[in-house]
Amino acid sequence: MSDGFDEIASRLVATAKSFHSRGWLLGTSGNLSAVVQREPLQLAMSPSGVDKGELRADQLLSIDEHAQITGGNSGKPSDESLLHIRIVKQRGAGAVLHTHSIWNTILSDVYAAEGGVKIEGYEMLKGLQGVRTHEHAEWLPIIENSQNIPALAGTIGHTLNRHEAAHGFLVRRHGLYSWGENLAQAKRHIEILEFLLETIGRTLHIRAQAT
Amino acid sequence: MSDGFDEIASRLVATAKSFHSRGWLLGTSGNLSAVVQREPLQLAMSPSGVDKGELRADQLLSIDEHAQITGGNSGKPSDESLLHIRIVKQRGAGAVLHTHSIWNTILSDVYAAEGGVKIEGYEMLKGLQGVRTHEHAEWLPIIENSQNIPALAGTIGHTLNRHEAAHGFLVRRHGLYSWGENLAQAKRHIEILEFLLETIGRTLHIRAQAT
Amino acid sequence: MSDGFDEIASRLVATAKSFHSRGWLLGTSGNLSAVVQREPLQLAMSPSGVDKGELRADQLLSIDEHAQITGGNSGKPSDESLLHIRIVKQRGAGAVLHTHSIWNTILSDVYAAEGGVKIEGYEMLKGLQGVRTHEHAEWLPIIENSQNIPALAGTIGHTLNRHEAAHGFLVRRHGLYSWGENLAQAKRHIEILEFLLETIGRTLHIRAQAT
Amino acid sequence: MSDGFDEIASRLVATAKSFHSRGWLLGTSGNLSAVVQREPLQLAMSPSGVDKGELRADQLLSIDEHAQITGGNSGKPSDESLLHIRIVKQRGAGAVLHTHSIWNTILSDVYAAEGGVKIEGYEMLKGLQGVRTHEHAEWLPIIENSQNIPALAGTIGHTLNRHEAAHGFLVRRHGLYSWGENLAQAKRHIEILEFLLETIGRTLHIRAQAT
Repeated sequence: MSDGFDEIASRLVATAKSFHSRGWLLGTSGNLSAVVQREPLQLAMSPSGVDKGELRADQLLSIDEHAQITGGNSGKPSDESLLHIRIVKQRGAGAVLHTHSIWNTILSDVYAAEGGVKIEGYEMLKGLQGVRTHEHAEWLPIIENSQNIPALAGTIGHTLNRHEAAHGFLVRRHGLYSWGENLAQAKRHIEILEFLLETIGRTLHIRAQAT
Repeated sequence: MSDGFDEIASRLVATAKSFHSRGWLLGTSGNLSAVVQREPLQLAMSPSGVDKGELRADQLLSIDEHAQITGGNSGKPSDESLLHIRIVKQRGAGAVLHTHSIWNTILSDVYAAEGGVKIEGYEMLKGLQGVRTHEHAEWLPIIENSQNIPALAGTIGHTLNRHEAAHGFLVRRHGLYSWGENLAQAKRHIEILEFLLETIGRTLHIRAQAT
Repeated sequence: MSDGFDEIASRLVATAKSFHSRGWLLGTSGNLSAVVQREPLQLAMSPSGVDKGELRADQLLSIDEHAQITGGNSGKPSDESLLHIRIVKQRGAGAVLHTHSIWNTILSDVYAAEGGVKIEGYEMLKGLQGVRTHEHAEWLPIIENSQNIPALAGTIGHTLNRHEAAHGFLVRRHGLYSWGENLAQAKRHIEILEFLLETIGRTLHIRAQAT
Repeated sequence: MSDGFDEIASRLVATAKSFHSRGWLLGTSGNLSAVVQREPLQLAMSPSGVDKGELRADQLLSIDEHAQITGGNSGKPSDESLLHIRIVKQRGAGAVLHTHSIWNTILSDVYAAEGGVKIEGYEMLKGLQGVRTHEHAEWLPIIENSQNIPALAGTIGHTLNRHEAAHGFLVRRHGLYSWGENLAQAKRHIEILEFLLETIGRTLHIRAQAT
């Protein structure tokens, strides 16, 4: 593996441990990737079925644009590698992160009928790339869950096209995907979206009671 | 103690500390075990009355299929060792974990009249051994609590027979038991079931208010 | 300071850091003490106004039965030292811990009119010294808050006499006191009571909605 | 940079990491400052856009009373530096801390129509500088959010004049500002106000249901 791969793998591990400690990657759930090179595409990808609190940099997998292992570690890439690759290509992302938190799971279900969660009026939104004011309205689309990964990748591609300004999306009763130009930005986006989803979820409690 | 025992004891300690930090083993509650050998059965078992956040590998006990100490440390095995042994034998488990979390305590009570909690439609379910789709319906049986440990072991045996697909069970106002072929799988199962119980508990709040 | 003092001071610091990380001692609130010797009484006591997440063993104070400094560090003992001394004498406690948690603050207020919180039917209760079954009913008295410390000490003395089986008490909108024969037992009692108060508080939400 | 600066920078980093772990500075949000010298004014200020969980002391910026960099690191000071400077000058503060927590965001919105949150009757209030009794009533003003920083600084100045006893204020759907004579006191104030806001928010749930 190249120096670039090792450096990226180390930073993916630090991100995984941070998110696991917050309860966003429990039970080996979720996955993380970052671009090592663009042409041809090489991704550092978290392996399937590994405890994210105990992940080691030498367990990260190198995959190509077809989610095939390309030298280095053997191992099983996550089924969801195809979703990461789709996002990398369609958004030009440098890193893609996928978390399973309590609050993203709940809100992906509560707002499923609306097709997404509208997040508006929070200062935190300014941390999303390109957003300049808290008056921004972020639409976080919700996609129905499926075990047919190529079909899910197609739906994601369609959703990304339709919602060009979206910084992430939810898969119903499944989790959150976000991304960034690089890993630091992708991590920032996940932290912001998780924060806002929890804020909205807890506000639902209070608002309902006040009326 | 054999090398196998020491290695297993170290990993039980790491699991105990991780769960204690999440508040799932407060007040010396809960217990953890893993199989060292099958014939004759030897289990590494957490001692009774020890702070799980300060547990040391040299405190783990070696017990046989009657929950008797078999060399190495002296100490008092948990009364619930018999329950671990029952699960190991009946499920062929390689590790058994028992947690006392806020949410497993609450849901074991709220759903007691139904006799269990039905968990269905969550991607997280796929982390349970043998589950292939989020459409899986997991039935988590609830057993009435008792201080008569042999009687409780009998009820557990009966419950495990009746619900052959169950990956865990709740004891009412007491806690969660889950297990796995090995310790990593058992830890994964606990993290998944705790996550799903908290998700269901918090959704109860929002659903009730929305209607 | 004696070896006994230094050893006890180190363990008080470890307890303080653990509780601070759980949010039970924020903003320099709360205090911790343990008996170094009985005749004459010498207590190791946390100093007033120090961040419990940054407490060092060399900051612990040695005080006598009148809460006067007895050699070693100078510094200001907490005003509440008199409450610790009262508990030590009246219960024969070896350690006294006082936490300010979100949930103990809330429940000390919600149940103030009843004069206490009844905790019954939880397995966790068995971790309280002398309790043998989850069918135990623990009565956690609630005392009205006051800035008159000698008067508050008197009320506490009266409450301890009246509720001889109590393992702790709440001061309204203020916090929880618990104790034990030694520090390990006192820490266990705090963890158990905090767990049960949070469980009851969260159940209040769900129960109210289910009806 | 002077020794004073390096020492202060190290302590700002420790505070940042502690608050980030509690979820009060997610997604590079929030900022921290402390006075290095008064005449002419020199502040150590957290840089814009940096992950507070990974902040290093050598990234802290030295700024003057116009929020201009004064030697040492280059980098971009937060837009909100002007707000810190305003507070330092008007309150004579030695440190200013600004957090984005779930609960301060929610309460800044729920109580916006009242113009502030009244916090009364909690022992925790005694940790605020100069407060001697839990009977103290703290008024935490809420200021409407704005991207016009000079205008926001003006509103803050006006608010600080009008509420001379306030130990902090909320910016609506944005966050909490507090300060202190030094960093330790400012950290104490933030922990206390965050604790009380969460307590009030969770009590709103229970109170609404009990009636």
